[in-house]
Amino acid sequence: MKIGICGLGTVGGGTVNVMTRNSAEIAARCGRSVEIVQVGARRDNPDCDTSNINVSREIFDVANNPDVDVLVELIGGTTVARELVLTAIANGKHVVTANKALIAEHGNELFAAAAAKGVTIAYEAAVAGGIPIIKSLREGLAGNRIEWLAGIINGTGNYILTEMREKGRSFEEALSQAQALGYAEADPTFDVEGIDAAHKLVIMASLAFGMPLAFDKVFTEGISGVAKDDIQYADELGYRIKHLGIARRTGEGVELRVHPTLIPERRLIANVNGVMNAVLVNGDAVGPTLYYGAGAGAEATASAVIADIVDVARTLNVRPDQRVPLAGVTQESQGDLDEVLSMDDAETSYYMRISAFDKPGVMSKVATICSEQGISIEALIQHEPAEGEELVPVVLLTSRAREAQLQEAVSQIEALDTIQGPVVRIRVEPLG
Amino acid sequence: MKIGICGLGTVGGGTVNVMTRNSAEIAARCGRSVEIVQVGARRDNPDCDTSNINVSREIFDVANNPDVDVLVELIGGTTVARELVLTAIANGKHVVTANKALIAEHGNELFAAAAAKGVTIAYEAAVAGGIPIIKSLREGLAGNRIEWLAGIINGTGNYILTEMREKGRSFEEALSQAQALGYAEADPTFDVEGIDAAHKLVIMASLAFGMPLAFDKVFTEGISGVAKDDIQYADELGYRIKHLGIARRTGEGVELRVHPTLIPERRLIANVNGVMNAVLVNGDAVGPTLYYGAGAGAEATASAVIADIVDVARTLNVRPDQRVPLAGVTQESQGDLDEVLSMDDAETSYYMRISAFDKPGVMSKVATICSEQGISIEALIQHEPAEGEELVPVVLLTSRAREAQLQEAVSQIEALDTIQGPVVRIRVEPLG
Repeated sequence: MKIGICGLGTVGGGTVNVMTRNSAEIAARCGRSVEIVQVGARRDNPDCDTSNINVSREIFDVANNPDVDVLVELIGGTTVARELVLTAIANGKHVVTANKALIAEHGNELFAAAAAKGVTIAYEAAVAGGIPIIKSLREGLAGNRIEWLAGIINGTGNYILTEMREKGRSFEEALSQAQALGYAEADPTFDVEGIDAAHKLVIMASLAFGMPLAFDKVFTEGISGVAKDDIQYADELGYRIKHLGIARRTGEGVELRVHPTLIPERRLIANVNGVMNAVLVNGDAVGPTLYYGAGAGAEATASAVIADIVDVARTLNVRPDQRVPLAGVTQESQGDLDEVLSMDDAETSYYMRISAFDKPGVMSKVATICSEQGISIEALIQHEPAEGEELVPVVLLTSRAREAQLQEAVSQIEALDTIQGPVVRIRVEPLG
Repeated sequence: MKIGICGLGTVGGGTVNVMTRNSAEIAARCGRSVEIVQVGARRDNPDCDTSNINVSREIFDVANNPDVDVLVELIGGTTVARELVLTAIANGKHVVTANKALIAEHGNELFAAAAAKGVTIAYEAAVAGGIPIIKSLREGLAGNRIEWLAGIINGTGNYILTEMREKGRSFEEALSQAQALGYAEADPTFDVEGIDAAHKLVIMASLAFGMPLAFDKVFTEGISGVAKDDIQYADELGYRIKHLGIARRTGEGVELRVHPTLIPERRLIANVNGVMNAVLVNGDAVGPTLYYGAGAGAEATASAVIADIVDVARTLNVRPDQRVPLAGVTQESQGDLDEVLSMDDAETSYYMRISAFDKPGVMSKVATICSEQGISIEALIQHEPAEGEELVPVVLLTSRAREAQLQEAVSQIEALDTIQGPVVRIRVEPLG
């Protein structure tokens, strides 16, 4: 099988290096040799030896090269990458990609084009780097009705939250540290505001629930508002704060949301620290399963790219219906985009931190407001006011309720004259 | 696709129930309907409705039924099961099995028979219940050279060790508790002495390293000798004791061993408790990845059986070389059985607990003995002797060394007249 690789950055270089180093293992696993016949890249990668490979400075050469069976798209972005992949498909080539934004935003279109042409698009590397989570959702758990999944799927954000907890750093300090180490970009929006996680979440949800990719419908809240005090109070209550992507099937539809989340410290996923990723998947038959590993990095991502290449190699000439369906289920059986619920209809518990004047009756008013919204208070810690300080930090955990009710309670609490400033609220998930 | 199921016990009943409940999801995932046309079972299962299925009391009827495309072997054991599977293969049927003993002990023969006949044997359910570890090793990590893997792959043993640690129970007390809850058999040998774990370990090692199944060559040590004191001392040193199956590739060959192991408490796998299973796999490209879930139970195991059925359904009529190779790699590329190292050549660290008379110079003699074997002492805790007790428990951790050297040091320490009784030793693995 002959492959062409477009893009020779971190992942492209890693892919060429690992394929070269492990060529004997890879051939043994797929039962045929896999040869890189062309690389399309605007510039060379000093960490990668391409002296024996035909390198073109024009990536579309690869998509139009009649010798190439499989185009491996590692250029990133969604504009040129989309055109490149559509060109490869039009030319009857299979595609392997690590591009989460491309799949999340244009996957429905690309899958339809691939299906019409009878070729496949493989995208294991688009989610959680080297962790084989796409394969697990799509094949390994195929006997299950997936009920929910929750993932730490952005290593930058997890690194920042881990530093804040372990070293008592503020968000800004931890972010600077992440930038100094190369874990975060100069403009960190994409990672810390949850856009990257939302891309990965919709890809996993589409496979778990057999629905189209619904990137526009994901609720996204970043971690820039998480204070180190909240991480410490969460600890006192037996919780860790993680930035989770959560997809959950309810009687009414599908929840798709990315937000900071308190999770019980006894859960394995609460102990996934640093830049590592993990995804917890709950199936009706298998119960909870967890997949953990490096979510980024040249060779970890290359591991997923190559697993896809091996899969494509094995099924190069089979009938399309003998391959794993692109979106996990056959196109006829896909659910509807209308299935995605508004965030108002999502159900969670809340962690709230309230700055209250130290006067009698404050907590009773808060409890009454919650109760009127059908919410009960399950834990409450009132801290001592700081020296010379009138305001007392009060931390509480609520019962599970609809988001709209919780928001209404927060608005009413904020309107109390015995409360100062906004109520800090972070969603809580038991993941049990 | 038409399947026949042999065995209607826990897993067989679970498989019928989940297939019935999730039939729409399963058909959507494999792109064709899957029908159970026959069940072979000596007796009915009251938890499973088979009123619409042709049930035969003679399991070989299923292997000889010309309507059956795939035989699902869930009878257990290695004698009749082997014959049944060979008969099904001879009749040109694909096989799905959850039988770890059968694959570990007769897999080489069965794989050869299947290859000769052009059919497949799928055995995801044979290792770690519903966790898709076979698929991850064989496909998801196909781009890697796997360096080592370590698994908590016996839920009974993990339950016992967890109870001992969390409730301060002795091995005997925790075992009785496990028996009362149905987690352990009346004769628990198979689980607590590591035979069950050895079955699963060789299956994983064969896939990870591309070698034949080498059950006879696994070193096995059970957990019946683990004292609650050792669990507590390990805790003091920042370790947990887990019963691990470990497969490691070294420059000289492959280590295959099952034994109680101290692992650093900060590793995720150290926090896998109760009956849950987890496997940590280290690939050269991906780094460490971990797979966690229920290792047993009717529906968790059924989840893996059905994932295999879906895989077989998709590739029912493809050429054999277009399927994933049975043993992970093509038969021509399989390594050699001679690769398995003797335990003497394995490399680990040791935790040692020594009962020493409280006299000067004892530790110096112990250190000299270790040093002469090329072993250094990396941590040492000397506990106070109990009231009126002359003997002091001394706990130490050694550097990494060959097993033969460590055993020699233990023998010499036991021969000291300032030491009483045998030296307790438990292997230590950093898993980092």
